[in-house]
Amino acid sequence: MPVPGPGYSITVRVEAPPSASAAGDLAGAIGRVGGVITAFDVVESHSDRIVVDITCNAVSANHARDITEALEVLPGVVVRKVSDRTFLMHLGGKIEVNAKVALRNRDDLSRAYTPGVARICQAIADNPDDARRLTIKRNTVAVVTDGSAVLGLGNLGPAAALPVMEGKAALFKKFAGVDAWPVCLDTQDTEEIIRTVQLIAPVYGGINLEDIAAPRCFEIEARLRDLLDIPVFHDDQHGTAICVVAALRNALRVVGKDMADTKIVVCGVGAAGSAIIRLLLRRGPADIVAVDVDGIVHSGRGDGDDNLKWVAANTNRENKTGNLHDALVGADVFIGVSAPNLFGAEQVATMAADPVVFALANPDPEIDPLEAQKHAAVVATGRSDYPNQINNVLAFPGVFRGLLDAQARGITDSMLLAAADAIADVVDGDKLNASFIVPSVFDPAVASAVAEAVRKAAGTSHSG
Amino acid sequence: MPVPGPGYSITVRVEAPPSASAAGDLAGAIGRVGGVITAFDVVESHSDRIVVDITCNAVSANHARDITEALEVLPGVVVRKVSDRTFLMHLGGKIEVNAKVALRNRDDLSRAYTPGVARICQAIADNPDDARRLTIKRNTVAVVTDGSAVLGLGNLGPAAALPVMEGKAALFKKFAGVDAWPVCLDTQDTEEIIRTVQLIAPVYGGINLEDIAAPRCFEIEARLRDLLDIPVFHDDQHGTAICVVAALRNALRVVGKDMADTKIVVCGVGAAGSAIIRLLLRRGPADIVAVDVDGIVHSGRGDGDDNLKWVAANTNRENKTGNLHDALVGADVFIGVSAPNLFGAEQVATMAADPVVFALANPDPEIDPLEAQKHAAVVATGRSDYPNQINNVLAFPGVFRGLLDAQARGITDSMLLAAADAIADVVDGDKLNASFIVPSVFDPAVASAVAEAVRKAAGTSHSG
Repeated sequence: MPVPGPGYSITVRVEAPPSASAAGDLAGAIGRVGGVITAFDVVESHSDRIVVDITCNAVSANHARDITEALEVLPGVVVRKVSDRTFLMHLGGKIEVNAKVALRNRDDLSRAYTPGVARICQAIADNPDDARRLTIKRNTVAVVTDGSAVLGLGNLGPAAALPVMEGKAALFKKFAGVDAWPVCLDTQDTEEIIRTVQLIAPVYGGINLEDIAAPRCFEIEARLRDLLDIPVFHDDQHGTAICVVAALRNALRVVGKDMADTKIVVCGVGAAGSAIIRLLLRRGPADIVAVDVDGIVHSGRGDGDDNLKWVAANTNRENKTGNLHDALVGADVFIGVSAPNLFGAEQVATMAADPVVFALANPDPEIDPLEAQKHAAVVATGRSDYPNQINNVLAFPGVFRGLLDAQARGITDSMLLAAADAIADVVDGDKLNASFIVPSVFDPAVASAVAEAVRKAAGTSHSG
Repeated sequence: MPVPGPGYSITVRVEAPPSASAAGDLAGAIGRVGGVITAFDVVESHSDRIVVDITCNAVSANHARDITEALEVLPGVVVRKVSDRTFLMHLGGKIEVNAKVALRNRDDLSRAYTPGVARICQAIADNPDDARRLTIKRNTVAVVTDGSAVLGLGNLGPAAALPVMEGKAALFKKFAGVDAWPVCLDTQDTEEIIRTVQLIAPVYGGINLEDIAAPRCFEIEARLRDLLDIPVFHDDQHGTAICVVAALRNALRVVGKDMADTKIVVCGVGAAGSAIIRLLLRRGPADIVAVDVDGIVHSGRGDGDDNLKWVAANTNRENKTGNLHDALVGADVFIGVSAPNLFGAEQVATMAADPVVFALANPDPEIDPLEAQKHAAVVATGRSDYPNQINNVLAFPGVFRGLLDAQARGITDSMLLAAADAIADVVDGDKLNASFIVPSVFDPAVASAVAEAVRKAAGTSHSG
């Protein structure tokens, strides 16, 4: 059952009678239909009426309409206007481009623009690497999408993906001082996407791929890594994998298990699932069993897809077959990046002692976390309204801060693992418990710790 | 002879003896080699020495070295450090991306990012035009180059062009509140450039092409105008043409001539020259004679290039032949966007009475303006150290402000002419004279006047 949240927050301006009971009547009406009031402001007061702005959280657009209607039917109440706070926040977009240099007078203009800028151009033409020092390439990341897998909404196209990319750019700046710019491509052709990113790359010190559907995303990432001399990161893959590896490290600390003895089920073998499997394998678990809509992935299935072939060849040592419920029997860890409501408490009961359940499908997890808690020792989700939210904001800002600072020309698994360890280690010994295996996304220590770890890994791995 | 300017400004930190004459000795040494001191700051003072930061303008990098050497040879003087103020200003680039929305807490995050943003994405998917309201497309322009004609420096490539594009983006924000972003393409293939701009277009409300070599720029602009539903403007063409038409309108007011009686020579038939000719023709001059490196353009030359063919067919009614000097005889107006030092005062003397000379080649004009003044009634250049600087900064910020505000889907000659008239009319009757035919680039009235004119023209021409 979804909870009213600020993602659906409306402000309703109403006229009401000036009676002593008016506020109570309004609040009561909203409460009866399940709205949660977060602010109540009287904006006008007259002898015959008051005008009030009531801000409240709802569950959905329909629920917001129900709330408005519940007010309208009250005697003497007139609804003047309903504002959707989320839409208001997006008017005109969420990011802007500002000058970092003064342009007050002709001297400023002579340095920042012609004629002075000509010398900077010539210096870069003479020594192309100077672009990393004398231009925005030093601190700038492209957030690239084709709009083919926007959040959980599917293939909405490039224009409808832009609000997400803007939000991502805002987060990059807020959490790590990185300048990020949305690149929403009006094509879903793999070759065109690769070529376009290659052609726009001179401006950027890194590429963050975002919301590009699998399996296309794998080829785009791999080919761009070969073609470009800047790091290419696919947040849905690598960002998620970093956060899961970090959370699992701490979850295993809580339950006192070693990775080498741990049997893991990964449900969902798209962009996120495959990347999680690849990174977890570097940590040497006892085994990983991958599950997709057709059940347990094993080499006997004869999958044609390169990605599934690789997964089949590198997981499932015991060559298990069957469905998700079969896979869970005796497993120590469940990691889901798939679909809502796939199992219940009775399946968690079949897992090994002290099982760990990461049910990350959004907004509705693979198992209701309250159900999972009945038998699991540690439960995490992607949601903000339960403990242990596994959110990529923990990883990507710090990762790119570190890559840019190191002027890295590529990205390696060592850097991803270093980032994961840095996130896990922010939750140190005395804070760590079953309800706190990852730090808050608002903990300012996270991005700087991740950045430092990535910078060090970039320095020692000579990734360039 | 170039004048020391802030484009070559250095700050030299020197140790000198604490004698009463030290400041005079230092200033004298710089003055003797032609440096111009703009600041003299004592940063340390001891009984045995002083430490001084001397900031001065130079003519070139070599000249800056001469200045430093002139200080080093003074008795008791030690040069500690020489800083180039232009390079310092460019470190790390000149623009940044900032969030316009607060991201202080989880409620903010829920609205700006997931889950709230999903509703904005869905709204745009349902009604694509909402992208112009709910995203940065509302206020954002791509500044696109292939680096093939960077300033007067030639084909330096995309990375070396970036400092110019950043400067342009800074000017867009400063003068018109437009968010502009550099797009430096790592290709000089016409088809690839067109396709790439088409693919990145969803994020932008307009395209500003910049520093792309002719004749490639003509096809790129024309094809993109057909393909895209946002305005495409090539500043080297249309920005320059607007400013020249504006300046000429006022120059003709000064000399009391009618456009219909005016014979114009345009020297240089690249991007700027061709666009100037096209826009001037809309104003109905008596005739235009175009001149390029091969002399006067006429249909008998049999030029193969589409652009030159068009020029030959639409100019030179009297079918003149010969060189630039021949063309100037009897002409009312010279407009040069070509090369340095092509003629002298003796050729200006052969022009009609009260001739107008716009010598816009940069940094060195077609004729030294002091020479031109001997016979010309009005002289303008592209330089900041003479009166009547014709600078595209007068046009492009206001043009795009107007286009974005009108949500224009295309751009027409009527809009360009409206912009030109708006610039000219900022210099009203009692201010207008031979040394003041265009407003200062720092006059805040310019961009808003241009924007209003373009908005109106966009509204009445139904350019969409």
